[in-house]
Formats: sequence, structure tokens, C-alpha cells
Amino acid sequence: MELIKTIDQMRSWTESQRQAGKTIGFVPTMGYLHEAHLSLVEKARAQNDTVVMSIFVNPMQFGPQEDFATYPRDLDRDCRLAEGAGVDVIFHPEPGEIYPQYPPLTAVEVKGITECLCGKSRPGHFTGVATVVLKLFNIVQPHRAYFGQKDYQQLLVIRQMVADLNLPVIIEPVPIKREEDGLAMSSRNAYLSPAERQEALALSQALQMCKNMYSNGELRVSLLIEAMKARILQEPSAVIDYIEIRHATTLAPLTEITGPAVVALAVRIGKTRLIDNLLLEGN
Amino acid sequence: MELIKTIDQMRSWTESQRQAGKTIGFVPTMGYLHEAHLSLVEKARAQNDTVVMSIFVNPMQFGPQEDFATYPRDLDRDCRLAEGAGVDVIFHPEPGEIYPQYPPLTAVEVKGITECLCGKSRPGHFTGVATVVLKLFNIVQPHRAYFGQKDYQQLLVIRQMVADLNLPVIIEPVPIKREEDGLAMSSRNAYLSPAERQEALALSQALQMCKNMYSNGELRVSLLIEAMKARILQEPSAVIDYIEIRHATTLAPLTEITGPAVVALAVRIGKTRLIDNLLLEGN
Repeated sequence: MELIKTIDQMRSWTESQRQAGKTIGFVPTMGYLHEAHLSLVEKARAQNDTVVMSIFVNPMQFGPQEDFATYPRDLDRDCRLAEGAGVDVIFHPEPGEIYPQYPPLTAVEVKGITECLCGKSRPGHFTGVATVVLKLFNIVQPHRAYFGQKDYQQLLVIRQMVADLNLPVIIEPVPIKREEDGLAMSSRNAYLSPAERQEALALSQALQMCKNMYSNGELRVSLLIEAMKARILQEPSAVIDYIEIRHATTLAPLTEITGPAVVALAVRIGKTRLIDNLLLEGN
Repeated sequence: MELIKTIDQMRSWTESQRQAGKTIGFVPTMGYLHEAHLSLVEKARAQNDTVVMSIFVNPMQFGPQEDFATYPRDLDRDCRLAEGAGVDVIFHPEPGEIYPQYPPLTAVEVKGITECLCGKSRPGHFTGVATVVLKLFNIVQPHRAYFGQKDYQQLLVIRQMVADLNLPVIIEPVPIKREEDGLAMSSRNAYLSPAERQEALALSQALQMCKNMYSNGELRVSLLIEAMKARILQEPSAVIDYIEIRHATTLAPLTEITGPAVVALAVRIGKTRLIDNLLLEGN
């Protein structure tokens, strides 16, 4: 496995692969890898000749009060895990390599699907995500790129950007990976104390409860949300950021589940903000 | 010469050229070609194996009160001129091919150099320009792209976007082409009546006067601007949009010319808005 730190070297590598007719799968991450990242690599490995993973904690997608400085980092461990999973190249640039001028003058704005959910509580977040992902796409020039469905709104934003900007890359979604007890895997789970780790189960359990109610015929969004809210608030440290049920692709608000819907929530457990979601078919 | 109207066909053509190891020069235009466009083609021809010209009147860069509907169009004539100049492919998509949804949800914003000059009188213009140019770059995937210096601020915006988004394309500027009497070539010159055509000479003459004053040692921006203003206002139909002297790359305002500067103006002659500019070395 190769560790590349500069844009020039990354470009040369890509060019040589493309000239050799090799397809490139790309897994953008902020590092501190866990099994969910490795499931992205697994899919990328299966669909492409070569796999590039970027590890870059992107300052542009963090708010001024957020956890950019403390976001967990462990490059050595990440390299071992990535190599074991079959990554060919880790692209790990310094912030100054990606942003010679910060903040950059150019930004990609995606409207319509970024004003709600995480976009509402994290203003500018998706602009930072879209901008850095576009930059990484232009540097790595992959054939396919892999995104986890835990960051569901992010996946929609990237897909919209790719469609609107005619980017020559295929976006491949990968299902949420969960711990055995149901907690959605996240690098931020590392922030949780043992007690908080236990409380954090409320997120996936609330979603599971919603799914059960829905399977039993409950289609009214307000009732489903009330039930989830009650479940979450059983935990002493839980502070709800949002619990919402929206159209699965447009993120339009719903009052009743009559088509594909996403149940999405963001909850603070102590100082740690966690997100999770669930897709409902709405047949 | 080939005329391509769909994104899919354009992509296939590009892919085949790139696989054959051919370099692609790209000349984005809004059509109604004149000699200045052909000088872009000439440079592209000299530096690349193949040349693609796009002809697309981009609705996103026109304001609601502007001349999108009446912008001059003549595809047959454009094809003849382009073929004569050595263009290999004209990419001429319908608006619905470029914007399946209008306005698109995704836009590229370039800050810092778009708030002044034309950006001030045409809000949203450079967002429309940057967005469509990025889309065209992603469709055509050229090695080099050619932009005229008459649209000086546009050239800076494209360069900033290319740098900030790490686009794998080289931007090549091409000097302003002028009619024999000095008028900068523009498709919008077609709007001018014979009398207005005569008045329009005020723009290039004002710039020339500024250059002479500067060569004679006048470095004070306010005096240079006053002199140009007086010259422009000799014309009965002339209404000044702006006359400014700014830093040549940052577009920061100047009070004295102590380094590279751009003298830029926009003037309405009757209903026609014309722009022109001049670079001063500032040694």
C-alpha cells in the first residue's frame, strides 16, 4: 500500500492507472477507521481494479463550535486497517495542501436538500462537504466513489452535485454498519463514556420501534415521531437535535408515509452528537 | 467537423480521444462567432491535437432583465466559421440537456473577486458562468481551455475556480481582438445601430487615453478615471455602468498604480451594454 500526501503525486498515480486501463474506486473518509469504512472498501474492491482511500479531516465542514480540533485521528492504525482491507493508496494531504488559502474563495452550494436536518443545525456543513468531495474527485479522478448511508443527507447532497455538475463518477451507497447491539458505527462513538455508550442505544432502538409501528400499519408521521421522541428522552443525557420523517429523495416534509421515506435523527448524548437513520419503502 | 448535441455523445468522443492519447483544447462560447472567438480556436489548434468548441447561450448567467432571449444566434454560420478555423467538434446542447431542472440545485460560488465590476451590476452572473463552465469542463474533459481577456473578470473567476477546485485543466488567456478602429470585438456589437457603433468607440478611446496618461507618468487612479469618464460622456447615448482601476489579480481597489492593474469599464450605448479593459504593468 502506498501513502501519498501531495496532490501532484496523487494525480500522477491516477494518470498511470487510467493509462493502464485500470478502474479506480474511491473511499473518502476522515480517518479513525472502523468496520463501516472497511465495508466501503470491500465494495470498492469488488467493483474496481484499484482502491484509493482519502483520510482528511476537512476543516470546511466543521462549524466554529464543533469538534474539528478534537476529532479522533490515528494514521498508523488507519494504515494498518486499510492495507488489511485491500486499499492500494491512502491519500492523506495536509490541510494546507487542500486549502492553500483558507477559507477558499470557491465553494459548491447545493440548495433544496441542505436546509433541513443536519443542514439546519450545522450551517455551512454541506457546503464544506460538497466542496471538499468535489476537490477530492478532481484530484483522485475515480470511476466510482463510495459513501455510507449513515450520512444519508450527505449521500443525497453528493448525488445531487454529481448530477448537476455532470461529474464523470458513479456514486455507490453502502448500508449502515451497526455494532452488535444496534449502535450505528461512527468515529465519534469514541467520544462516549461507558454510560453514554449505553444511552446511545436509544437512537437505533427508537428507529427500530418506528419501523415496527410502521410495519404494524402506523403511517402518521407525527405519531411515529412522538413515539421516538419519548424513547430517546428516557435517557438522562439525551438532547434531541431533530427527529424527522421526510421524503427519501427530495427530503420534503411528510405528514403520512405514502412513498419512500427516511426516518432521520440527531441526538446529543452528553457532548457527543450522533446521527442515525432508517429507510421505509412506503408501499 | 462533427456537431454533437448530447452529453453522452460528447463524453464518448472525449473518451475515445483520450484513450488514443490525444490532447483536447476547449473553446467555450455562446456562439455568434467573430474573429475573437476564432483567435481562441487558433491558439487551441496550435496547442492541442483536437479542438472542441461549445456553443451554448447559458441562461444561468443572464439576469431576469437581461438579453438572454434576444442574444444573437446563428448556428449555421457558426458551424461554417468554426470548421474553417479548424474546430473538430461543436458541442451544441439544448438548454434542457444542460439543465434538466432549472434553476439547478447546485451552484459554484466564487467569492472575493465577483462582488465588484460586472459582478456588482450583474448579481449572480459569475455564479452562472462558473457553474456552466464547470459543467462543460466535466462533460468535455479538456486538457486546456481558452478564454478571451475581454471578459477579464470572468477569466479571473475561472482561474480561481480551477485552482480552488483542483480542476485538471489548464486555463489559457487570449488577448482582446479589436476592430480596426479599436472597438473590442463582441457578439453584442451586433445590437448597435450605425450611430451607436460610432459612439461605442468611446470605450477603447478612453482606455487608450488612460494608457497614454499612465505612460506619461500619471499614476493617480482618481485622475485617470475622471479623464476616462469625461471622454465617455462626450457621447450622447453613453451611460456609464462603471469605470474602475483595480489590482490585476485580486481586483482590490487602488488609489495609485504601483503594480499590475486592470483598467475596466462597462458602458451602455443605448440599450447595449459593452465592456472593455486594459492591463497596465505598473513597474
